[in-house]
Amino acid sequence: MSTRGWAGDAREILRVDAGFRLAEVDPGAHPGYAGNKKSGAKDLAAGIDALSELQERLFAESRAGDTTDAVLLVLQAMDSAGKGGIVRHVVGGVDPQGIALTAFKAPTEQERAHDFLWRIEQRLPEPGFIGVFDRSHYEDVLIGKVRALAPEKEIERRYDAINEFEAQVAASGTRIVKVMLHISPEEQKERLMERLERPDKHWKYNPGDVDERMLWPQYMDAYQAAFDRTSTEVAPWHVVPANSKWYARLAVQELLLIALEDIDPQWPAADYDIEAEKKRLAAS
Amino acid sequence: MSTRGWAGDAREILRVDAGFRLAEVDPGAHPGYAGNKKSGAKDLAAGIDALSELQERLFAESRAGDTTDAVLLVLQAMDSAGKGGIVRHVVGGVDPQGIALTAFKAPTEQERAHDFLWRIEQRLPEPGFIGVFDRSHYEDVLIGKVRALAPEKEIERRYDAINEFEAQVAASGTRIVKVMLHISPEEQKERLMERLERPDKHWKYNPGDVDERMLWPQYMDAYQAAFDRTSTEVAPWHVVPANSKWYARLAVQELLLIALEDIDPQWPAADYDIEAEKKRLAAS
Repeated sequence: MSTRGWAGDAREILRVDAGFRLAEVDPGAHPGYAGNKKSGAKDLAAGIDALSELQERLFAESRAGDTTDAVLLVLQAMDSAGKGGIVRHVVGGVDPQGIALTAFKAPTEQERAHDFLWRIEQRLPEPGFIGVFDRSHYEDVLIGKVRALAPEKEIERRYDAINEFEAQVAASGTRIVKVMLHISPEEQKERLMERLERPDKHWKYNPGDVDERMLWPQYMDAYQAAFDRTSTEVAPWHVVPANSKWYARLAVQELLLIALEDIDPQWPAADYDIEAEKKRLAAS
Repeated sequence: MSTRGWAGDAREILRVDAGFRLAEVDPGAHPGYAGNKKSGAKDLAAGIDALSELQERLFAESRAGDTTDAVLLVLQAMDSAGKGGIVRHVVGGVDPQGIALTAFKAPTEQERAHDFLWRIEQRLPEPGFIGVFDRSHYEDVLIGKVRALAPEKEIERRYDAINEFEAQVAASGTRIVKVMLHISPEEQKERLMERLERPDKHWKYNPGDVDERMLWPQYMDAYQAAFDRTSTEVAPWHVVPANSKWYARLAVQELLLIALEDIDPQWPAADYDIEAEKKRLAAS
Protein backbone atom coordinates (compact mmCIF):
# COMPACT_ATOMS: atom_id res chain seq x y z
CA MET A 1 0.00 0.00 0.00
CA SER A 2 1.54 3.27 -1.11
CA THR A 3 1.54 6.19 1.24
CA ARG A 4 0.38 8.45 -1.56
CA GLY A 5 -3.23 7.29 -1.73
CA TRP A 6 -2.76 4.59 -4.37
CA ALA A 7 -4.30 1.15 -3.88
CA GLY A 8 -1.28 -0.50 -5.45
CA ASP A 9 1.56 -0.05 -7.94
CA ALA A 10 0.28 2.46 -10.53
CA ARG A 11 2.72 0.97 -13.04
CA GLU A 12 0.82 -2.29 -12.91
CA ILE A 13 -2.64 -0.80 -12.59
CA LEU A 14 -2.22 1.31 -15.73
CA ARG A 15 0.03 -0.94 -17.78
CA VAL A 16 -0.88 -2.23 -21.21
CA ASP A 17 -0.48 -6.01 -20.96
CA ALA A 18 -1.32 -8.86 -23.32
CA GLY A 19 -5.03 -8.82 -24.11
CA PHE A 20 -5.42 -5.13 -23.32
CA ARG A 21 -8.31 -3.47 -25.17
CA LEU A 22 -8.31 0.31 -25.36
CA ALA A 23 -12.02 0.24 -26.21
CA GLU A 24 -12.69 -1.20 -22.74
CA VAL A 25 -11.00 1.63 -20.83
CA ASP A 26 -13.35 4.21 -19.31
CA PRO A 27 -11.76 7.66 -19.86
CA GLY A 28 -13.71 8.97 -16.87
CA ALA A 29 -12.43 6.38 -14.38
CA HIS A 30 -9.78 6.86 -11.69
CA PRO A 31 -8.18 3.42 -11.48
CA GLY A 32 -6.09 2.76 -8.39
CA TYR A 33 -6.84 6.03 -6.66
CA ALA A 34 -9.75 6.17 -4.23
CA GLY A 35 -9.49 9.88 -3.48
CA ASN A 36 -11.29 12.76 -5.14
CA LYS A 37 -10.31 16.02 -6.81
CA LYS A 38 -9.59 17.66 -3.47
CA SER A 39 -7.35 14.93 -2.08
CA GLY A 40 -5.82 14.62 -5.54
CA ALA A 41 -4.69 18.24 -5.47
CA LYS A 42 -3.15 17.72 -2.04
CA ASP A 43 -1.38 14.54 -3.12
CA LEU A 44 -0.12 16.26 -6.28
CA ALA A 45 1.39 19.09 -4.25
CA ALA A 46 3.11 16.64 -1.90
CA GLY A 47 4.38 14.66 -4.86
CA ILE A 48 6.00 17.73 -6.40
CA ASP A 49 8.41 18.04 -3.49
CA ALA A 50 9.22 14.33 -3.60
CA LEU A 51 9.78 14.42 -7.36
CA SER A 52 12.00 17.50 -7.09
CA GLU A 53 14.22 15.92 -4.50
CA LEU A 54 14.52 12.61 -6.35
CA GLN A 55 15.44 14.43 -9.56
CA GLU A 56 18.04 16.54 -7.77
CA ARG A 57 19.60 13.42 -6.27
CA LEU A 58 19.69 11.79 -9.68
CA PHE A 59 21.27 14.90 -11.16
CA ALA A 60 23.87 14.98 -8.38
CA GLU A 61 24.73 11.33 -8.94
CA SER A 62 25.15 11.88 -12.64
CA ARG A 63 27.42 14.91 -12.13
CA ALA A 64 29.60 12.80 -9.87
CA GLY A 65 29.81 10.25 -12.67
CA ASP A 66 28.13 7.66 -10.47
CA THR A 67 25.28 6.84 -12.83
CA THR A 68 24.10 6.96 -16.41
CA ASP A 69 20.46 6.76 -15.29
CA ALA A 70 17.82 9.08 -16.67
CA VAL A 71 14.03 9.09 -17.04
CA LEU A 72 12.15 9.63 -20.28
CA LEU A 73 8.45 10.46 -20.23
CA VAL A 74 6.77 9.91 -23.59
CA LEU A 75 3.38 11.63 -23.87
CA GLN A 76 0.90 10.76 -26.59
CA ALA A 77 -2.75 11.73 -26.84
CA MET A 78 -5.53 13.08 -28.99
CA ASP A 79 -5.75 16.90 -29.15
CA SER A 80 -6.80 18.63 -25.91
CA ALA A 81 -6.29 15.49 -23.80
CA GLY A 82 -4.02 17.42 -21.45
CA LYS A 83 -0.38 16.91 -22.47
CA GLY A 84 0.27 20.60 -21.90
CA GLY A 85 -1.26 20.43 -18.44
CA ILE A 86 1.01 17.51 -17.54
CA VAL A 87 4.05 19.47 -18.64
CA ARG A 88 2.96 22.54 -16.73
CA HIS A 89 1.64 21.02 -13.52
CA VAL A 90 3.67 17.82 -13.13
CA VAL A 91 6.95 18.46 -14.93
CA GLY A 92 6.78 22.17 -14.06
CA GLY A 93 7.19 21.34 -10.37
CA VAL A 94 10.73 20.10 -10.98
CA ASP A 95 13.80 22.35 -11.23
CA PRO A 96 14.06 23.44 -14.90
CA GLN A 97 17.78 22.61 -14.69
CA GLY A 98 16.88 18.92 -14.55
CA ILE A 99 14.29 18.86 -17.35
CA ALA A 100 14.87 18.29 -21.05
CA LEU A 101 11.58 18.93 -22.85
CA THR A 102 10.99 18.45 -26.54
CA ALA A 103 7.72 19.17 -28.33
CA PHE A 104 7.87 17.25 -31.61
CA LYS A 105 6.07 18.90 -34.51
CA ALA A 106 5.55 17.66 -38.06
CA PRO A 107 9.05 16.73 -39.24
CA THR A 108 11.04 19.31 -41.20
CA GLU A 109 12.44 18.57 -44.64
CA GLN A 110 15.84 17.85 -43.11
CA GLU A 111 14.27 15.47 -40.61
CA ARG A 112 12.30 13.69 -43.30
CA ALA A 113 15.52 13.04 -45.17
CA HIS A 114 16.60 10.82 -42.26
CA ASP A 115 15.11 7.76 -40.62
CA PHE A 116 12.17 8.65 -38.37
CA LEU A 117 14.20 7.87 -35.23
CA TRP A 118 17.04 10.23 -36.17
CA ARG A 119 15.52 13.34 -34.60
CA ILE A 120 14.33 11.34 -31.58
CA GLU A 121 17.77 10.04 -30.76
CA GLN A 122 19.16 13.56 -30.63
CA ARG A 123 16.68 14.56 -27.95
CA LEU A 124 17.19 11.68 -25.53
CA PRO A 125 17.82 12.94 -21.99
CA GLU A 126 21.37 13.00 -20.72
CA PRO A 127 22.16 11.16 -17.47
CA GLY A 128 20.55 12.88 -14.48
CA PHE A 129 17.71 14.45 -16.46
CA ILE A 130 14.02 13.84 -16.80
CA GLY A 131 13.40 14.00 -20.53
CA VAL A 132 9.88 14.74 -21.71
CA PHE A 133 8.62 14.07 -25.22
CA ASP A 134 5.42 15.95 -26.03
CA ARG A 135 4.53 13.71 -28.97
CA SER A 136 7.27 11.42 -30.14
CA HIS A 137 8.37 8.73 -32.58
CA TYR A 138 4.92 7.23 -32.06
CA GLU A 139 3.44 9.88 -34.34
CA ASP A 140 5.12 7.94 -37.13
CA VAL A 141 2.93 4.91 -36.43
CA LEU A 142 -0.20 6.88 -35.41
CA ILE A 143 -0.85 9.76 -37.79
CA GLY A 144 1.55 7.93 -40.09
CA LYS A 145 -0.86 4.98 -40.19
CA VAL A 146 -4.16 6.86 -40.06
CA ARG A 147 -3.19 9.30 -42.81
CA ALA A 148 -1.27 6.62 -44.73
CA LEU A 149 1.82 8.83 -44.77
CA ALA A 150 3.85 5.65 -45.18
CA PRO A 151 3.00 2.22 -46.67
CA GLU A 152 1.71 -0.43 -44.27
CA LYS A 153 4.94 -2.40 -44.68
CA GLU A 154 6.97 0.61 -43.52
CA ILE A 155 4.67 1.06 -40.50
CA GLU A 156 5.30 -2.58 -39.63
CA ARG A 157 9.05 -2.02 -39.90
CA ARG A 158 8.76 0.96 -37.59
CA TYR A 159 7.20 -1.03 -34.74
CA ASP A 160 10.23 -3.31 -34.76
CA ALA A 161 12.63 -0.40 -35.10
CA ILE A 162 10.97 1.30 -32.12
CA ASN A 163 11.28 -1.80 -29.96
CA GLU A 164 14.93 -2.21 -30.82
CA PHE A 165 15.61 1.48 -30.23
CA GLU A 166 13.81 1.57 -26.89
CA ALA A 167 15.57 -1.60 -25.72
CA GLN A 168 18.91 0.13 -26.36
CA VAL A 169 17.79 3.28 -24.60
CA ALA A 170 16.60 1.27 -21.59
CA ALA A 171 19.85 -0.73 -21.53
CA SER A 172 21.82 2.51 -21.37
CA GLY A 173 20.09 3.36 -18.08
CA THR A 174 17.06 5.39 -19.14
CA ARG A 175 13.71 4.47 -17.59
CA ILE A 176 11.12 4.91 -20.33
CA VAL A 177 7.65 5.89 -19.10
CA LYS A 178 5.21 5.77 -22.02
CA VAL A 179 1.84 7.36 -21.39
CA MET A 180 -1.26 7.72 -23.52
CA LEU A 181 -3.71 10.21 -22.05
CA HIS A 182 -7.13 8.83 -22.88
CA ILE A 183 -10.15 11.12 -23.18
CA SER A 184 -13.57 10.46 -24.65
CA PRO A 185 -14.68 12.12 -27.89
CA GLU A 186 -17.44 13.91 -25.92
CA GLU A 187 -14.86 15.35 -23.53
CA GLN A 188 -12.75 16.49 -26.47
CA LYS A 189 -15.75 18.23 -28.01
CA GLU A 190 -16.30 20.20 -24.80
CA ARG A 191 -12.65 21.18 -24.52
CA LEU A 192 -12.39 22.28 -28.16
CA MET A 193 -15.64 24.22 -27.80
CA GLU A 194 -14.17 26.04 -24.81
CA ARG A 195 -11.24 27.08 -26.98
CA LEU A 196 -13.68 28.55 -29.47
CA GLU A 197 -15.61 30.36 -26.76
CA ARG A 198 -12.70 32.01 -24.94
CA PRO A 199 -10.65 34.70 -26.73
CA ASP A 200 -7.59 33.77 -24.64
CA LYS A 201 -7.90 30.21 -25.98
CA HIS A 202 -8.52 30.97 -29.66
CA TRP A 203 -4.85 30.56 -30.49
CA LYS A 204 -4.95 26.99 -29.23
CA TYR A 205 -7.65 26.02 -31.71
CA ASN A 206 -6.86 24.84 -35.20
CA PRO A 207 -9.52 23.89 -37.75
CA GLY A 208 -7.38 20.83 -38.47
CA ASP A 209 -8.27 19.59 -34.97
CA VAL A 210 -11.80 18.81 -36.19
CA ASP A 211 -10.43 16.99 -39.25
CA GLU A 212 -8.40 14.74 -36.96
CA ARG A 213 -11.38 14.33 -34.66
CA MET A 214 -13.43 12.92 -37.54
CA LEU A 215 -10.89 10.08 -37.66
CA TRP A 216 -11.33 9.16 -33.98
CA PRO A 217 -12.06 5.43 -34.56
CA GLN A 218 -9.09 5.13 -36.93
CA TYR A 219 -6.84 6.77 -34.33
CA MET A 220 -8.06 4.41 -31.61
CA ASP A 221 -7.26 1.49 -33.93
CA ALA A 222 -3.80 2.90 -34.55
CA TYR A 223 -3.21 3.28 -30.80
CA GLN A 224 -4.40 -0.28 -30.22
CA ALA A 225 -2.01 -1.54 -32.92
CA ALA A 226 0.87 0.45 -31.42
CA PHE A 227 0.09 -0.95 -27.96
CA ASP A 228 -0.07 -4.51 -29.34
CA ARG A 229 3.30 -4.14 -31.01
CA THR A 230 5.31 -1.86 -28.73
CA SER A 231 4.24 -2.42 -25.12
CA THR A 232 7.36 -4.32 -24.10
CA GLU A 233 8.88 -5.51 -20.85
CA VAL A 234 11.49 -2.72 -20.80
CA ALA A 235 9.20 0.00 -22.16
CA PRO A 236 5.55 -0.78 -21.44
CA TRP A 237 2.72 1.54 -22.34
CA HIS A 238 0.40 3.04 -19.73
CA VAL A 239 -3.06 4.25 -20.59
CA VAL A 240 -4.16 7.02 -18.22
CA PRO A 241 -7.86 7.93 -18.22
CA ALA A 242 -7.81 11.69 -18.65
CA ASN A 243 -11.35 13.04 -18.61
CA SER A 244 -10.50 14.15 -15.04
CA LYS A 245 -7.45 16.37 -15.44
CA TRP A 246 -6.58 16.09 -11.76
CA TYR A 247 -6.47 12.30 -11.97
CA ALA A 248 -4.34 12.25 -15.10
CA ARG A 249 -1.79 14.60 -13.55
CA LEU A 250 -1.63 12.61 -10.35
CA ALA A 251 -1.26 9.34 -12.24
CA VAL A 252 1.58 10.59 -14.45
CA GLN A 253 3.31 12.06 -11.41
CA GLU A 254 2.98 8.71 -9.67
CA LEU A 255 4.52 6.89 -12.64
CA LEU A 256 7.46 9.30 -12.60
CA LEU A 257 7.87 8.94 -8.84
CA ILE A 258 7.94 5.16 -9.11
CA ALA A 259 10.52 5.30 -11.92
CA LEU A 260 12.77 7.52 -9.81
CA GLU A 261 12.24 5.50 -6.64
CA ASP A 262 13.21 2.46 -8.65
CA ILE A 263 16.51 4.15 -9.52
CA ASP A 264 16.83 5.16 -5.84
CA PRO A 265 19.45 7.86 -6.43
CA GLN A 266 21.76 8.73 -3.53
CA TRP A 267 23.69 11.88 -2.74
CA PRO A 268 27.18 11.12 -4.02
CA ALA A 269 30.11 11.01 -1.61
CA ALA A 270 32.64 13.82 -1.88
CA ASP A 271 35.55 12.98 -4.19
CA TYR A 272 37.78 15.45 -2.32
CA ASP A 273 39.09 15.67 1.24
CA ILE A 274 36.31 17.52 3.10
CA GLU A 275 38.40 18.55 6.13
CA ALA A 276 41.30 19.73 3.96
CA GLU A 277 38.91 21.79 1.83
CA LYS A 278 37.36 23.36 4.93
CA LYS A 279 40.82 24.53 5.95
CA ARG A 280 41.67 25.83 2.48
CA LEU A 281 38.38 27.69 2.30
CA ALA A 282 38.71 29.13 5.80
CA ALA A 283 42.16 30.44 4.94
CA SER A 284 41.04 31.99 1.66
CA MET B 1 5.26 53.99 -8.65
CA SER B 2 4.99 50.31 -9.43
CA THR B 3 2.25 48.29 -7.79
CA ARG B 4 4.74 45.58 -6.98
CA GLY B 5 6.54 47.32 -4.13
CA TRP B 6 9.28 48.95 -6.16
CA ALA B 7 10.15 52.60 -5.65
CA GLY B 8 10.75 53.08 -9.37
CA ASP B 9 11.79 51.33 -12.56
CA ALA B 10 14.11 48.47 -11.51
CA ARG B 11 15.73 48.63 -14.95
CA GLU B 12 17.01 52.09 -14.16
CA ILE B 13 17.75 51.48 -10.52
CA LEU B 14 19.98 48.49 -11.25
CA ARG B 15 21.42 49.53 -14.61
CA VAL B 16 25.12 49.89 -15.27
CA ASP B 17 25.51 53.41 -16.67
CA ALA B 18 28.54 55.52 -17.53
CA GLY B 19 30.68 55.98 -14.43
CA PHE B 20 29.36 52.86 -12.72
CA ARG B 21 31.81 51.36 -10.21
CA LEU B 22 31.20 47.76 -9.15
CA ALA B 23 33.40 48.33 -6.10
CA GLU B 24 30.85 50.85 -4.81
CA VAL B 25 27.91 48.44 -4.89
CA ASP B 26 26.91 46.96 -1.52
CA PRO B 27 26.09 43.26 -2.11
CA GLY B 28 23.89 43.33 0.99
CA ALA B 29 21.67 46.23 -0.15
CA HIS B 30 18.12 46.05 -1.53
CA PRO B 31 18.02 49.00 -3.93
CA GLY B 32 14.56 50.13 -5.02
CA TYR B 33 12.65 47.73 -2.82
CA ALA B 34 11.54 48.91 0.61
CA GLY B 35 10.01 45.61 1.74
CA ASN B 36 11.61 42.80 3.68
CA LYS B 37 12.08 39.06 3.23
CA LYS B 38 8.46 38.38 4.14
CA SER B 39 6.88 40.89 1.76
CA GLY B 40 9.47 39.85 -0.81
CA ALA B 41 8.23 36.26 -0.74
CA LYS B 42 4.67 37.47 -1.19
CA ASP B 43 5.60 39.75 -4.07
CA LEU B 44 7.60 36.96 -5.69
CA ALA B 45 4.60 34.60 -5.58
CA ALA B 46 2.34 37.25 -7.11
CA GLY B 47 4.91 37.97 -9.78
CA ILE B 48 5.06 34.31 -10.82
CA ASP B 49 1.44 34.41 -11.94
CA ALA B 50 1.98 37.67 -13.81
CA LEU B 51 5.13 36.35 -15.49
CA SER B 52 3.40 33.10 -16.47
CA GLU B 53 0.53 34.90 -18.12
CA LEU B 54 2.76 37.36 -19.97
CA GLN B 55 4.91 34.54 -21.28
CA GLU B 56 1.87 32.57 -22.41
CA ARG B 57 0.55 35.61 -24.28
CA LEU B 58 3.92 36.09 -25.93
CA PHE B 59 3.99 32.44 -26.90
CA ALA B 60 0.47 32.65 -28.31
CA GLU B 61 1.38 35.72 -30.36
CA SER B 62 4.45 34.01 -31.75
CA ARG B 63 2.52 30.88 -32.73
CA ALA B 64 0.05 33.07 -34.59
CA GLY B 65 3.01 34.59 -36.45
CA ASP B 66 2.20 38.00 -34.99
CA THR B 67 5.59 38.63 -33.42
CA THR B 68 9.26 37.71 -33.47
CA ASP B 69 9.70 38.95 -29.90
CA ALA B 70 11.48 36.92 -27.28
CA VAL B 71 13.29 37.56 -23.99
CA LEU B 72 16.82 36.48 -23.17
CA LEU B 73 18.03 36.46 -19.57
CA VAL B 74 21.82 36.32 -19.31
CA LEU B 75 23.04 35.30 -15.83
CA GLN B 76 26.62 35.81 -14.72
CA ALA B 77 28.05 35.57 -11.24
CA MET B 78 30.78 34.23 -9.02
CA ASP B 79 30.21 30.67 -7.74
CA SER B 80 27.37 30.22 -5.26
CA ALA B 81 25.91 33.68 -5.97
CA GLY B 82 22.51 32.12 -6.69
CA LYS B 83 22.15 31.55 -10.42
CA GLY B 84 20.63 28.17 -9.74
CA GLY B 85 18.13 29.65 -7.31
CA ILE B 86 17.04 32.19 -9.92
CA VAL B 87 16.46 29.42 -12.44
CA ARG B 88 14.54 27.35 -9.93
CA HIS B 89 12.47 30.00 -8.17
CA VAL B 90 11.99 32.69 -10.83
CA VAL B 91 12.20 30.89 -14.17
CA GLY B 92 10.73 27.71 -12.62
CA GLY B 93 7.42 29.51 -12.08
CA VAL B 94 6.85 29.78 -15.82
CA ASP B 95 5.43 26.97 -17.97
CA PRO B 96 8.41 24.81 -19.07
CA GLN B 97 6.95 24.89 -22.59
CA GLY B 98 7.94 28.56 -22.82
CA ILE B 99 11.46 28.31 -21.42
CA ALA B 100 14.69 27.61 -23.29
CA LEU B 101 17.44 27.14 -20.70
CA THR B 102 21.09 26.60 -21.50
CA ALA B 103 23.84 26.06 -18.92
CA PHE B 104 27.11 26.84 -20.66
CA LYS B 105 30.08 24.82 -19.48
CA ALA B 106 33.73 25.01 -20.50
CA PRO B 107 33.63 24.83 -24.31
CA THR B 108 34.09 21.43 -25.95
CA GLU B 109 36.80 20.80 -28.53
CA GLN B 110 34.26 21.24 -31.33
CA GLU B 111 33.10 24.54 -29.81
CA ARG B 112 36.65 25.79 -29.43
CA ALA B 113 37.22 25.17 -33.13
CA HIS B 114 34.63 27.89 -33.84
CA ASP B 115 34.37 31.56 -32.88
CA PHE B 116 33.30 31.97 -29.24
CA LEU B 117 29.85 33.22 -30.30
CA TRP B 118 29.11 30.17 -32.45
CA ARG B 119 27.64 28.05 -29.66
CA ILE B 120 25.79 31.04 -28.22
CA GLU B 121 23.99 31.82 -31.45
CA GLN B 122 22.61 28.29 -31.61
CA ARG B 123 20.95 28.67 -28.23
CA LEU B 124 19.17 31.97 -28.77
CA PRO B 125 15.49 31.73 -27.84
CA GLU B 126 12.94 31.34 -30.61
CA PRO B 127 10.08 33.85 -30.82
CA GLY B 128 7.69 33.47 -27.90
CA PHE B 129 10.25 31.98 -25.52
CA ILE B 130 12.11 33.20 -22.48
CA GLY B 131 15.66 32.07 -23.06
CA VAL B 132 17.94 31.73 -20.06
CA PHE B 133 21.73 31.57 -20.24
CA ASP B 134 23.30 30.21 -17.07
CA ARG B 135 26.76 31.60 -17.86
CA SER B 136 27.23 32.84 -21.40
CA HIS B 137 29.55 34.41 -23.96
CA TYR B 138 30.72 36.66 -21.12
CA GLU B 139 32.79 33.81 -19.73
CA ASP B 140 35.05 34.43 -22.73
CA VAL B 141 35.89 37.91 -21.43
CA LEU B 142 35.77 37.01 -17.71
CA ILE B 143 37.59 33.74 -17.03
CA GLY B 144 39.10 34.30 -20.46
CA LYS B 145 40.71 37.49 -19.20
CA VAL B 146 41.49 36.44 -15.62
CA ARG B 147 43.09 33.14 -16.65
CA ALA B 148 44.63 34.69 -19.79
CA LEU B 149 43.02 32.00 -21.93
CA ALA B 150 43.25 34.43 -24.83
CA PRO B 151 45.63 37.33 -25.55
CA GLU B 152 44.51 40.79 -24.42
CA LYS B 153 44.03 41.84 -28.03
CA GLU B 154 41.58 38.99 -28.60
CA ILE B 155 39.66 39.92 -25.43
CA GLU B 156 39.39 43.46 -26.81
CA ARG B 157 38.07 42.11 -30.10
CA ARG B 158 35.48 40.07 -28.22
CA TYR B 159 33.94 43.09 -26.50
CA ASP B 160 33.24 44.60 -29.90
CA ALA B 161 32.02 41.31 -31.32
CA ILE B 162 29.62 40.93 -28.36
CA ASN B 163 28.21 44.41 -28.86
CA GLU B 164 27.65 43.82 -32.55
CA PHE B 165 26.11 40.41 -31.89
CA GLU B 166 23.77 41.67 -29.17
CA ALA B 167 22.69 44.62 -31.32
CA GLN B 168 21.62 42.15 -34.01
CA VAL B 169 19.81 39.95 -31.50
CA ALA B 170 17.98 42.97 -30.08
CA ALA B 171 17.09 44.20 -33.58
CA SER B 172 15.50 40.82 -34.33
CA GLY B 173 13.05 41.37 -31.47
CA THR B 174 14.76 39.78 -28.48
CA ARG B 175 14.86 41.78 -25.24
CA ILE B 176 18.22 41.07 -23.66
CA VAL B 177 18.27 41.21 -19.86
CA LYS B 178 21.86 40.95 -18.64
CA VAL B 179 22.27 40.34 -14.92
CA MET B 180 25.32 40.00 -12.71
CA LEU B 181 24.43 38.60 -9.30
CA HIS B 182 26.77 40.33 -6.89
CA ILE B 183 27.74 38.71 -3.60
CA SER B 184 30.51 39.60 -1.17
CA PRO B 185 33.51 37.29 -0.72
CA GLU B 186 32.45 36.78 2.91
CA GLU B 187 29.00 35.62 1.80
CA GLN B 188 30.59 33.25 -0.70
CA LYS B 189 32.79 31.79 2.02
CA GLU B 190 29.71 31.00 4.12
CA ARG B 191 27.87 29.44 1.22
CA LEU B 192 30.81 27.29 0.15
CA MET B 193 31.34 26.24 3.77
CA GLU B 194 27.72 25.13 3.93
CA ARG B 195 28.33 22.92 0.91
CA LEU B 196 31.20 21.30 2.76
CA GLU B 197 29.15 20.82 5.89
CA ARG B 198 26.04 19.23 4.36
CA PRO B 199 26.30 15.77 2.74
CA ASP B 200 23.44 16.64 0.38
CA LYS B 201 25.50 19.62 -0.84
CA HIS B 202 28.90 17.95 -1.22
CA TRP B 203 28.30 17.35 -4.93
CA LYS B 204 27.95 21.09 -5.48
CA TYR B 205 31.40 21.79 -4.13
CA ASN B 206 34.48 21.68 -6.31
CA PRO B 207 37.99 22.33 -5.02
CA GLY B 208 38.45 24.55 -8.08
CA ASP B 209 35.90 26.93 -6.53
CA VAL B 210 38.51 28.00 -3.97
CA ASP B 211 41.10 28.50 -6.71
CA GLU B 212 38.71 30.88 -8.49
CA ARG B 213 37.88 32.55 -5.18
CA MET B 214 41.57 33.42 -4.68
CA LEU B 215 41.27 35.50 -7.85
CA TRP B 216 38.32 37.56 -6.56
CA PRO B 217 39.89 41.00 -7.19
CA GLN B 218 40.93 39.98 -10.70
CA TYR B 219 37.39 38.78 -11.42
CA MET B 220 35.90 42.03 -10.14
CA ASP B 221 38.27 43.91 -12.47
CA ALA B 222 37.20 41.70 -15.37
CA TYR B 223 33.53 42.34 -14.59
CA GLN B 224 34.20 46.08 -14.38
CA ALA B 225 35.95 45.97 -17.77
CA ALA B 226 33.08 43.98 -19.30
CA PHE B 227 30.57 46.49 -17.92
CA ASP B 228 32.59 49.41 -19.26
CA ARG B 229 32.72 47.90 -22.71
CA THR B 230 29.42 46.03 -23.13
CA SER B 231 26.71 47.87 -21.17
CA THR B 232 24.98 49.31 -24.22
CA GLU B 233 21.71 51.08 -24.92
CA VAL B 234 20.08 47.97 -26.41
CA ALA B 235 21.63 45.49 -23.98
CA PRO B 236 22.55 47.17 -20.70
CA TRP B 237 23.99 45.31 -17.74
CA HIS B 238 22.22 45.16 -14.39
CA VAL B 239 24.07 44.47 -11.18
CA VAL B 240 21.80 42.81 -8.63
CA PRO B 241 23.04 42.72 -5.01
CA ALA B 242 22.64 39.07 -4.08
CA ASN B 243 23.70 38.54 -0.47
CA SER B 244 19.94 38.40 0.22
CA LYS B 245 18.66 35.60 -2.00
CA TRP B 246 15.07 36.77 -1.69
CA TYR B 247 15.98 40.24 -2.97
CA ALA B 248 18.00 38.91 -5.92
CA ARG B 249 15.13 36.65 -7.01
CA LEU B 250 12.60 39.44 -6.72
CA ALA B 251 14.82 41.86 -8.64
CA VAL B 252 15.46 39.46 -11.52
CA GLN B 253 11.77 38.64 -11.68
CA GLU B 254 11.00 42.35 -11.81
CA LEU B 255 13.46 42.86 -14.69
CA LEU B 256 11.79 40.03 -16.60
CA LEU B 257 8.32 41.39 -15.88
CA ILE B 258 9.31 44.82 -17.15
CA ALA B 259 10.80 43.34 -20.33
CA LEU B 260 7.59 41.44 -21.02
CA GLU B 261 5.35 44.37 -20.13
CA ASP B 262 7.41 46.41 -22.54
CA ILE B 263 6.56 43.92 -25.29
CA ASP B 264 2.93 44.00 -24.09
CA PRO B 265 1.88 40.78 -25.83
CA GLN B 266 -1.80 40.34 -26.73
CA TRP B 267 -3.92 37.25 -27.27
CA PRO B 268 -3.96 36.88 -31.05
CA ALA B 269 -7.23 37.09 -32.95
CA ALA B 270 -8.54 33.87 -34.48
CA ASP B 271 -7.41 33.37 -38.08
CA TYR B 272 -10.47 31.17 -38.75
CA ASP B 273 -14.22 31.75 -38.71
CA ILE B 274 -15.20 31.14 -35.09
CA GLU B 275 -18.92 30.64 -35.70
CA ALA B 276 -18.34 28.32 -38.64
CA GLU B 277 -15.93 26.25 -36.55
CA LYS B 278 -18.42 26.01 -33.70
CA LYS B 279 -20.93 24.52 -36.14
CA ARG B 280 -18.39 22.10 -37.63
CA LEU B 281 -17.34 20.99 -34.17
CA ALA B 282 -20.91 20.62 -32.92
CA ALA B 283 -21.72 18.44 -35.92
CA SER B 284 -18.65 16.25 -35.48
